[in-house]
Amino acid sequence: MKLHRIHSLQRKLSENGIDAAIILQHRDLFYYSGTAQPCNLIVPQKGAPLLLVRRGESFVREETWIEPYEMGGSPKQMARKLGELGISHGTLGVEFDTVPYGLIQRMAAAFPAFTLADVSPLIMEQRAVKDPDEIQLLREACARFDLMHEAAQRSIRAGMTELELSAVLADVQIRNQVEQRVFIRRWDDWLQPTGAIASGENLHRISGHAHTVTGVGLSTALPWGASDREICENDLIVVDSPINYKGYHADNARTYVAGRATPRRRDTYRDLMEVQSAALGAIRAGIPVQEVFEIGMEKVRNLGFADFFQGFGDSQGQYLGHGIGLEVDEPPVIDPRTSTPILKDMVLAVESKFIIPDFGAVFIEDTVHVTEGGYEILTRSSRDLAETG
Amino acid sequence: MKLHRIHSLQRKLSENGIDAAIILQHRDLFYYSGTAQPCNLIVPQKGAPLLLVRRGESFVREETWIEPYEMGGSPKQMARKLGELGISHGTLGVEFDTVPYGLIQRMAAAFPAFTLADVSPLIMEQRAVKDPDEIQLLREACARFDLMHEAAQRSIRAGMTELELSAVLADVQIRNQVEQRVFIRRWDDWLQPTGAIASGENLHRISGHAHTVTGVGLSTALPWGASDREICENDLIVVDSPINYKGYHADNARTYVAGRATPRRRDTYRDLMEVQSAALGAIRAGIPVQEVFEIGMEKVRNLGFADFFQGFGDSQGQYLGHGIGLEVDEPPVIDPRTSTPILKDMVLAVESKFIIPDFGAVFIEDTVHVTEGGYEILTRSSRDLAETG
Repeated sequence: MKLHRIHSLQRKLSENGIDAAIILQHRDLFYYSGTAQPCNLIVPQKGAPLLLVRRGESFVREETWIEPYEMGGSPKQMARKLGELGISHGTLGVEFDTVPYGLIQRMAAAFPAFTLADVSPLIMEQRAVKDPDEIQLLREACARFDLMHEAAQRSIRAGMTELELSAVLADVQIRNQVEQRVFIRRWDDWLQPTGAIASGENLHRISGHAHTVTGVGLSTALPWGASDREICENDLIVVDSPINYKGYHADNARTYVAGRATPRRRDTYRDLMEVQSAALGAIRAGIPVQEVFEIGMEKVRNLGFADFFQGFGDSQGQYLGHGIGLEVDEPPVIDPRTSTPILKDMVLAVESKFIIPDFGAVFIEDTVHVTEGGYEILTRSSRDLAETG
Repeated sequence: MKLHRIHSLQRKLSENGIDAAIILQHRDLFYYSGTAQPCNLIVPQKGAPLLLVRRGESFVREETWIEPYEMGGSPKQMARKLGELGISHGTLGVEFDTVPYGLIQRMAAAFPAFTLADVSPLIMEQRAVKDPDEIQLLREACARFDLMHEAAQRSIRAGMTELELSAVLADVQIRNQVEQRVFIRRWDDWLQPTGAIASGENLHRISGHAHTVTGVGLSTALPWGASDREICENDLIVVDSPINYKGYHADNARTYVAGRATPRRRDTYRDLMEVQSAALGAIRAGIPVQEVFEIGMEKVRNLGFADFFQGFGDSQGQYLGHGIGLEVDEPPVIDPRTSTPILKDMVLAVESKFIIPDFGAVFIEDTVHVTEGGYEILTRSSRDLAETG
């Protein structure tokens, strides 16, 4: 029973002059209704919500905390239902960032007396602060990354391909109930379940889908993730994996050497960890998000890595992490523009990497729970540069 | 060099009175430009297309056959570029079915002198007929399903869970370069890479995302695919897997018994294969799609399975297959409403299943290439009911 989520949304609707919201996107539906079956959810500013079930009713009946629910979900039926709730005109909130144009166009035609407003920012603002249940699931997701990290340490050796490493890690994921589907809110982005696995020169070949170590993938159709490159003796290897466990994503990264680390690599990794520690050390409830970014960047500049932090040249990104939960790319983005405060019970993926042509990359990412006075790292495994083989 | 794809689209734009199209969706972009990096593609009704590269230029340079390309891609820049091509007003084609409302709204604001039209139906009509290269990739994708089928026959035994079977099949997929990301055009649908794996009573528990054997998954957050149910002696098991190989998806299903098949199961499977053979036998270039459906359904009725074909009760579907390629759910849908003809070099996933409460399900799906006078099944493995253990 998580009806308090509906009540919080209703307060936000009221504050923003939105008369009702119609939730269509599957992760938002799951958050507010408890089911990921094909449904539409009508949330009036006041009063009881109504779940319209398009299919899968035998599942919905067991899963949802929304009462009542009815079968259906056409735009016409939704307009009629809203009328029955006494809402015949005004402002209607829908999710502009994810719902296709064609569908919202059909909705607009069925709701001629309504102005449409984007309700996604309100939803994502609400979802940014996690319930205790959500934090527990994120902790369990992180425990599964720990298992992957152990397996990577045990398995990496010169001669294996990035793809073979991916197979080892996928096996650990699947046998530990990690979903092999990662949810990203951005409509034209995707991640494979084992994430970005890259080694050697692939560490500084940055595909366009994000400003990070991307790997180059197997073909032009999906230019991201593990490739069939063979890992060589003394290569650096990065594993940056999302973990979808019961719908909640952890996002962590570790760096490995296929062999013993050279002094330069040790020193570079130590400098990287200084940046990461500075950023993490700045986290506490109340601090503006952009300050965490600035504190991390100050350390980057002091250490002389400004040209290689989060990429280089065209591919360099201006961020230090992001919120995480039902989707991998949740607000807040830890960047210089985000002036809102960090809040207690946010869960953040804080990530630092140096990507250096002709060197490769070192990368650490931690999923952390924001507490009143600081943060807690949700993984338990070592965060050191891992020597293997 | 596949510029002929652009020329075909231009003919369709001309026939439909669309002055230019702006392609934003990643699979369409890959089809027309050869790159899946973040780009936008401007296709005027006449003359040279222009690719705008948002990121990943070092990849795009090696991949695309579109010349020229430029950096950028904001709605404003696109409007300016279209003006430079001499197109300052008229009808602008965009993809209504996949591009989010917010993005097309920003586009509309930048193109005030244009009326927007949905270009997706024209694109999907074109993509339905495959090039020889595409058919070859679909054949290679099907060869990878054959490897999965072999592994399933070798591995299935009472006592293993659906999830353990999924792990075995994922390992075969990954080591044979099957992408662990399946592309579906429908904005709110998804499939895990090993697809629907279901056994025993899970065969007739139908989740709402499609009218098929869905499996029940691991949690309410992703109610589809393998669960942690343990396979019992003499259970029926279905594996229905999409295979994304270099961007092209095969879609095939097989049915297994954990042990020896009873006479009822043999008979039911034999009847199912009669339906599948009837449907396949109807396929040839020129026949209306709906006739294939009707011929299959006539056989279903004659055999007395009308209440259990493609599900039962509320969950019963009216279809016999679908096109397949860069996405799993391509047109044409083989259903009673599709009156367009089947065309040479379409690739279709033809699927028959009986789902019977208290019995389970039997399921066969074949990916077939439509030839002038018939069809070719692209898998080579046995399509019999497979006894295992």
